[in-house]
Amino acid sequence: MSELTYWVNGDFVPASQAMVPLTSRGYRLGDGVFDTERTFNGKLFKLDAHLARLEKSLRFTRIDPGMSMAELGRISEETLGKNLHLLEEHGDFWVTQTISRGAGRNLLESGTAFVSVIVEPLPFARFAPFYSQGVHLVAPAARTSAVSGMDPKLKATSRLGMVLADLESKQTDPDALTLLLDEQGNLAEVIYGNLFLVRDGKIRTPGGRAILEGVTRATTMELARGAGLAVSECELQPYDLYTADEAFVSTTSYCVLPVGRLNGSPVGKEVPGPLTRRISEEWNKLAGLDIAEQMHSYAARAQAAAQPATAARG
Amino acid sequence: MSELTYWVNGDFVPASQAMVPLTSRGYRLGDGVFDTERTFNGKLFKLDAHLARLEKSLRFTRIDPGMSMAELGRISEETLGKNLHLLEEHGDFWVTQTISRGAGRNLLESGTAFVSVIVEPLPFARFAPFYSQGVHLVAPAARTSAVSGMDPKLKATSRLGMVLADLESKQTDPDALTLLLDEQGNLAEVIYGNLFLVRDGKIRTPGGRAILEGVTRATTMELARGAGLAVSECELQPYDLYTADEAFVSTTSYCVLPVGRLNGSPVGKEVPGPLTRRISEEWNKLAGLDIAEQMHSYAARAQAAAQPATAARG
Amino acid sequence: MSELTYWVNGDFVPASQAMVPLTSRGYRLGDGVFDTERTFNGKLFKLDAHLARLEKSLRFTRIDPGMSMAELGRISEETLGKNLHLLEEHGDFWVTQTISRGAGRNLLESGTAFVSVIVEPLPFARFAPFYSQGVHLVAPAARTSAVSGMDPKLKATSRLGMVLADLESKQTDPDALTLLLDEQGNLAEVIYGNLFLVRDGKIRTPGGRAILEGVTRATTMELARGAGLAVSECELQPYDLYTADEAFVSTTSYCVLPVGRLNGSPVGKEVPGPLTRRISEEWNKLAGLDIAEQMHSYAARAQAAAQPATAARG
Amino acid sequence: MSELTYWVNGDFVPASQAMVPLTSRGYRLGDGVFDTERTFNGKLFKLDAHLARLEKSLRFTRIDPGMSMAELGRISEETLGKNLHLLEEHGDFWVTQTISRGAGRNLLESGTAFVSVIVEPLPFARFAPFYSQGVHLVAPAARTSAVSGMDPKLKATSRLGMVLADLESKQTDPDALTLLLDEQGNLAEVIYGNLFLVRDGKIRTPGGRAILEGVTRATTMELARGAGLAVSECELQPYDLYTADEAFVSTTSYCVLPVGRLNGSPVGKEVPGPLTRRISEEWNKLAGLDIAEQMHSYAARAQAAAQPATAARG
Amino acid sequence: MSELTYWVNGDFVPASQAMVPLTSRGYRLGDGVFDTERTFNGKLFKLDAHLARLEKSLRFTRIDPGMSMAELGRISEETLGKNLHLLEEHGDFWVTQTISRGAGRNLLESGTAFVSVIVEPLPFARFAPFYSQGVHLVAPAARTSAVSGMDPKLKATSRLGMVLADLESKQTDPDALTLLLDEQGNLAEVIYGNLFLVRDGKIRTPGGRAILEGVTRATTMELARGAGLAVSECELQPYDLYTADEAFVSTTSYCVLPVGRLNGSPVGKEVPGPLTRRISEEWNKLAGLDIAEQMHSYAARAQAAAQPATAARG
Amino acid sequence: MSELTYWVNGDFVPASQAMVPLTSRGYRLGDGVFDTERTFNGKLFKLDAHLARLEKSLRFTRIDPGMSMAELGRISEETLGKNLHLLEEHGDFWVTQTISRGAGRNLLESGTAFVSVIVEPLPFARFAPFYSQGVHLVAPAARTSAVSGMDPKLKATSRLGMVLADLESKQTDPDALTLLLDEQGNLAEVIYGNLFLVRDGKIRTPGGRAILEGVTRATTMELARGAGLAVSECELQPYDLYTADEAFVSTTSYCVLPVGRLNGSPVGKEVPGPLTRRISEEWNKLAGLDIAEQMHSYAARAQAAAQPATAARG
Repeated sequence: MSELTYWVNGDFVPASQAMVPLTSRGYRLGDGVFDTERTFNGKLFKLDAHLARLEKSLRFTRIDPGMSMAELGRISEETLGKNLHLLEEHGDFWVTQTISRGAGRNLLESGTAFVSVIVEPLPFARFAPFYSQGVHLVAPAARTSAVSGMDPKLKATSRLGMVLADLESKQTDPDALTLLLDEQGNLAEVIYGNLFLVRDGKIRTPGGRAILEGVTRATTMELARGAGLAVSECELQPYDLYTADEAFVSTTSYCVLPVGRLNGSPVGKEVPGPLTRRISEEWNKLAGLDIAEQMHSYAARAQAAAQPATAARG
Repeated sequence: MSELTYWVNGDFVPASQAMVPLTSRGYRLGDGVFDTERTFNGKLFKLDAHLARLEKSLRFTRIDPGMSMAELGRISEETLGKNLHLLEEHGDFWVTQTISRGAGRNLLESGTAFVSVIVEPLPFARFAPFYSQGVHLVAPAARTSAVSGMDPKLKATSRLGMVLADLESKQTDPDALTLLLDEQGNLAEVIYGNLFLVRDGKIRTPGGRAILEGVTRATTMELARGAGLAVSECELQPYDLYTADEAFVSTTSYCVLPVGRLNGSPVGKEVPGPLTRRISEEWNKLAGLDIAEQMHSYAARAQAAAQPATAARG
Repeated sequence: MSELTYWVNGDFVPASQAMVPLTSRGYRLGDGVFDTERTFNGKLFKLDAHLARLEKSLRFTRIDPGMSMAELGRISEETLGKNLHLLEEHGDFWVTQTISRGAGRNLLESGTAFVSVIVEPLPFARFAPFYSQGVHLVAPAARTSAVSGMDPKLKATSRLGMVLADLESKQTDPDALTLLLDEQGNLAEVIYGNLFLVRDGKIRTPGGRAILEGVTRATTMELARGAGLAVSECELQPYDLYTADEAFVSTTSYCVLPVGRLNGSPVGKEVPGPLTRRISEEWNKLAGLDIAEQMHSYAARAQAAAQPATAARG
Repeated sequence: MSELTYWVNGDFVPASQAMVPLTSRGYRLGDGVFDTERTFNGKLFKLDAHLARLEKSLRFTRIDPGMSMAELGRISEETLGKNLHLLEEHGDFWVTQTISRGAGRNLLESGTAFVSVIVEPLPFARFAPFYSQGVHLVAPAARTSAVSGMDPKLKATSRLGMVLADLESKQTDPDALTLLLDEQGNLAEVIYGNLFLVRDGKIRTPGGRAILEGVTRATTMELARGAGLAVSECELQPYDLYTADEAFVSTTSYCVLPVGRLNGSPVGKEVPGPLTRRISEEWNKLAGLDIAEQMHSYAARAQAAAQPATAARG
Repeated sequence: MSELTYWVNGDFVPASQAMVPLTSRGYRLGDGVFDTERTFNGKLFKLDAHLARLEKSLRFTRIDPGMSMAELGRISEETLGKNLHLLEEHGDFWVTQTISRGAGRNLLESGTAFVSVIVEPLPFARFAPFYSQGVHLVAPAARTSAVSGMDPKLKATSRLGMVLADLESKQTDPDALTLLLDEQGNLAEVIYGNLFLVRDGKIRTPGGRAILEGVTRATTMELARGAGLAVSECELQPYDLYTADEAFVSTTSYCVLPVGRLNGSPVGKEVPGPLTRRISEEWNKLAGLDIAEQMHSYAARAQAAAQPATAARG
Repeated sequence: MSELTYWVNGDFVPASQAMVPLTSRGYRLGDGVFDTERTFNGKLFKLDAHLARLEKSLRFTRIDPGMSMAELGRISEETLGKNLHLLEEHGDFWVTQTISRGAGRNLLESGTAFVSVIVEPLPFARFAPFYSQGVHLVAPAARTSAVSGMDPKLKATSRLGMVLADLESKQTDPDALTLLLDEQGNLAEVIYGNLFLVRDGKIRTPGGRAILEGVTRATTMELARGAGLAVSECELQPYDLYTADEAFVSTTSYCVLPVGRLNGSPVGKEVPGPLTRRISEEWNKLAGLDIAEQMHSYAARAQAAAQPATAARG
């Protein structure tokens, strides 16, 4: 059987049959939260840290998931297990928990939440070229949401603000990652990732005010400190990124990628820079595999698999 | 048959079977837009104005609905027609079009949008008491979203920011409507509605900068001007509402309701105030029925229907 | 004699006869500053730190008190001495120095300041229940004053901005304490107090930018560090308080109280939380008495004293 | 008898004996509001408009004055009557109503307000030279208070923010009037007055967002329109004042004064400018006397009265 | 003689020999102002309006040009006259006055200003294609300068902020025009031009708060009103431009150009839209020539002139 | 020969003949950057640190200087060498590198930059009195430029915003230094310098967000730490400066000067304060001369040189 299996509100169902009611608050209002982990060699990585953040999202939005995070963790492991036979060579998975508020009209008594766990193959082919070239960051005019309402620390399913920012930069360069500034013009975050830069041998990253507090970001800071590197959280501006010695971004899926350009200008003197390479090595040790190598192998295999078909057409 | 019928991506289905894929961008990202009309005596009111606004929402979010607004209008009328036999005595309907972006991972080629039209009975019993008492507005600490990202003029399905604001005021008073200030502390809007106030015989309403440009708001301004009343759009602050001679809110469902209190303090000298009553009369003429009367009749009927059961228990 | 004695511009007078001219700048313009200490077992606590802050308030407002802080300290002790015989069982005092600018019309030559020292019994009965239940914090829409004018670090007698914020939250819940956000939506302070929260075993408190730099806050940070706990000052948002492991507030009178709810939602997993209890114990050691116990005893005594009267009426 | 008489909480008392309790909320917290009118030829001018604004201040601050505005108006007239025999040649009076919240500790049940009406001679000698030279406006770094807390439209006794701004400009030039910008850098108001400027033959004045809505401002706009001049309210910046054809300020006491300089730079081509003169003439007609002439006469008389004494000393 | 002639501080000099001292405040500090007019058929257009704005720039920056604007106007006409023989077929000129502050170290006594008038051919070939395709507007993350310092209404030679914004959008699309938002996320202006949009048959343009008040903008508004079209100045956001029926930009050189795209998305339903065409016709009447036609003819001639050379090389 | 020699785009020229084209982007747009060092005893101080900052300015503005910083350093030393024979007794030099973008109309292909190195005598006579009296800081209403456009960290030749701020404070007091607040009302920097203040024995200075990161500021922090003093970077407000124990400013030319007054009010208890004196001693050690002594000697010599001439006139 080649279809992925999801867990939806208590049942395991084939991916293609996983549905939510049209009138759910999740669909009509974006009234939900989620979190996502990846696997290394098919094993979930930092699940507890992600569930702890998910629990904060639930408390902040006052959604009652109807189960403990420990239980949701067990369900996640079980769902992963049901999909492991579909893991491709060199591939790995994303596992995502999504919880949206119950459908009751009355906000304070909205009833049972809608909970799901899904498993998806990581899109390695897309990321592979960036390990050597670096990513292109484009900062659109749109800003992060203001902290007094929809705090960027919340991992919500109401993400249209980010989609709009993404459209502005991607219509400019479809391969760009979108860099968000906060309401005061400070560097905030990359959509679905965090930003780090290096100046005078020290690593700096925007503080926790207007960003998602990435689990990969925290792990990266720990790894850097463990390797004897100085890391500080502070307010940074576009000037700091334009003039950085090197820069990189971090996220759950690709872990760490070097930055190559910012709004069309080259960033840093070498891509990847020496500290970016150092951090990547630490990540490889922790993950127990060569992350970039895995992506390249996967991408090569995917291309090879596609070749014959193309050749046949030729 | 007593179940409502929805139109979902080309098919008419019973409400209880209307579903969207769990992995749709609408559910995972709140990446969609919608609009809602009401009926008077079972006939759709101002459908064209609502579809024109929906078209703007689509252009702003760059979602291609795969059909013209004229076609969506015809579908809406047809869907309404299939539900008219379920219209309760004194009741009326909401009709809602929702369009979420196609599920493709690539934002710029996201494929066919997911389109639905649903019909729901208006919750008259909830609004009925407010026609005489006025609503209680509570302004939470959270503000409207900033215009540089997620413009409040967009009618999006990413509404968690508003849900969070609503939670803050409703945990304080479950019957309150939530009043939002904009980032600069000006009065902006009521969640799902617009605000008007009266000072020295003139009607004022917050300008279009940080609000949803309500169809009912526009109609109310036209009716007021038609009745010889001065109406202006301007920047207003909480001071203006605390010291207003009278105030009212407008929205698609209840049309116009007087404001009774603001953060626990009485607003105005009389509830409803004389201009609020005047505007309500103009609305009744336009709607072809007595809007408050309809709500009270409906509420009375609903209560009467509930009574025997209760009595039986007694 | 059972009336309290105040020191007013050089003279000791009975409280009921302590007056200021109607045309004083203090009454007409709120053009004054003050500071307040409490006693433990009838002895003034941290008087010097409070006078040092008062001196800063005077320098910032360019009011000349016409005496040194040392002299004002001696007067304060003397005024306290004249009232000690009125100290109730389990009770303690507040001592407040208030200085308003002289009445001259010319701001730069406003003449002799108006100086007073007053003594008031601490309102223990009001605070007693909060030690076990925690306080309910409500954040109104109003923000702290902007730092570019009326810096929140100044302890001024122009407090109507705070009164207005207090009205908004207290009309919602008369027992709430009012939590203020700063102009950027960060957590700032509780009216008449400071906020602390705990995350991952570490204590965090808003930095000094937009808050009164509480003497009790500084003492609490010293006590925590002395007890081996990590404390940091940083920018925090409502998200951080909604998702905190525990939280507490500090002020001169009650020292430290746990937070129970925020805008109607429970805060933390236990009230008081383990670090709040730990800090309270350190405070008890420093104060030389059990602060919560004192409040409860006082409240119990006050209730007992009231009972017979009530009983007599019954 | 040469002492002024005040009305204080129900009694007429000599000015020197008018007192408020040291512990009143008015003195300790600046928790009060006020309004001020002037007389022309000993008759109160625009009393009703000032009382209407005072009533708004009371509603916004939720202070119950314990009497109607009509009653307070009668008391004001009566208090003025008791002082008319003290009116100096060419002189006129200010009459001020001040109301501070009752002294109860509980904000929501603060008890009887403290109400006073006082009468003071207008300080004509100070203003006289400005009618020909123009005033010097100095804009300090401090800004108006933010509208989301302490709205500048409120006429409160918590005025330390304004005092601090005044100190900054007056320590620079003791004769300057202080010009406040709002939080966004727009021109707001002059402390105790409003600003008007002329560009291309049209009068412009900052809109009502972040200013006290002056009764004299409203009257000036009416007079200008009555004289066929265009007047608009809009957002203006320092650029507009530096480059204005002419400018003037308005307030209750001096009515209208030309602006001569801004931060040391000359403003306009002629002082007073032609439209300023035109507006002044309209004011004279309305007031029934030549306002500038009155001030000069008064100042001359005051100087003459002082001369002999000085001569005697010589 | 084929070289352009400039007027520099009193002398006519060949363009290639026009120099300023390296230590001038204009070069070291950008401490200067300028204005630019175009010719139609070799005649200066709206010179007086441009000189009036230049005079405002001088007053705001407190630079004394050492001559009247009338005199500078005569010099400008004379300089133009000396260059008219160089006017190409279908071509027209830009004339620019630049005035930088004298070189004295003491800011308040900086001595004689440095004044120049230069003449340059209009770059018609660059603009020609935009009349039919419309321009592509790209909004970078950088914003206009804040009004409280460097007001955008000032036409200053300190333009690096604009150059930086331009770099961000042009590195993305070298043919884009840069659209600036103000500090609050409102639409402000296009670098070197102003923005207009059409909604429901009415023309809207950002108000004067954070923009250069274009002479061409003012003329366009007059022409539109003269043609019976409604024009209003108001706060507009990116939403309004994304959803506009049509849009155009105005500036001194090209007068009016339609907008084709915004951040990669098409704007309006037709390019140019019907009102843009209408306004262009009015401009043609006022200018006494067909502006687009002139550009196309010039561009065609320029291309034809270039052809033989290219052919010869082939 | 008594004229200074400059290096301009490859050639050594007498100062009076150093020119830039009138149409250079440097003159017309302020499109350039610069940096400045001083000498001690005729030797360049911290040249490398200044060139490193200049390189950041070039990268941020995307100007290609056409040479390495090492080469520019050699040219700077050589230019200094050609001027050393003009060094006056007790005097020292400023050396300034300025680079403006090439004159091409196309921003992305602007061609060869315009590079210059100039040498100027330090204006010691102006600074000498401040070592004992302290400087007077005046904060105008204008703010620093916003970080989202023209980041204050950039050392640009577009400085009109600063000139305008300087005009406001200097028209008030011609001897004042101008203190800039940032957009949020925090203390930012002194024009051409940085601010430090002392509180409770610890040195504080505004963090790097909205300031030029002074080389002298960095050196001062190193010297202070080397001397065992605590130094922290943080957000500070005017309150902190009004109430500081002492304060000083730092810049390349005068190194460190005490603050005497802020907006007319005295700052600190002693001028210079004890830590300011301590830091000055460390600077003297590093510079290898007594900096204040040098200034006084130079000023005395300059005055003596001027005396005979004056006397002769007498």
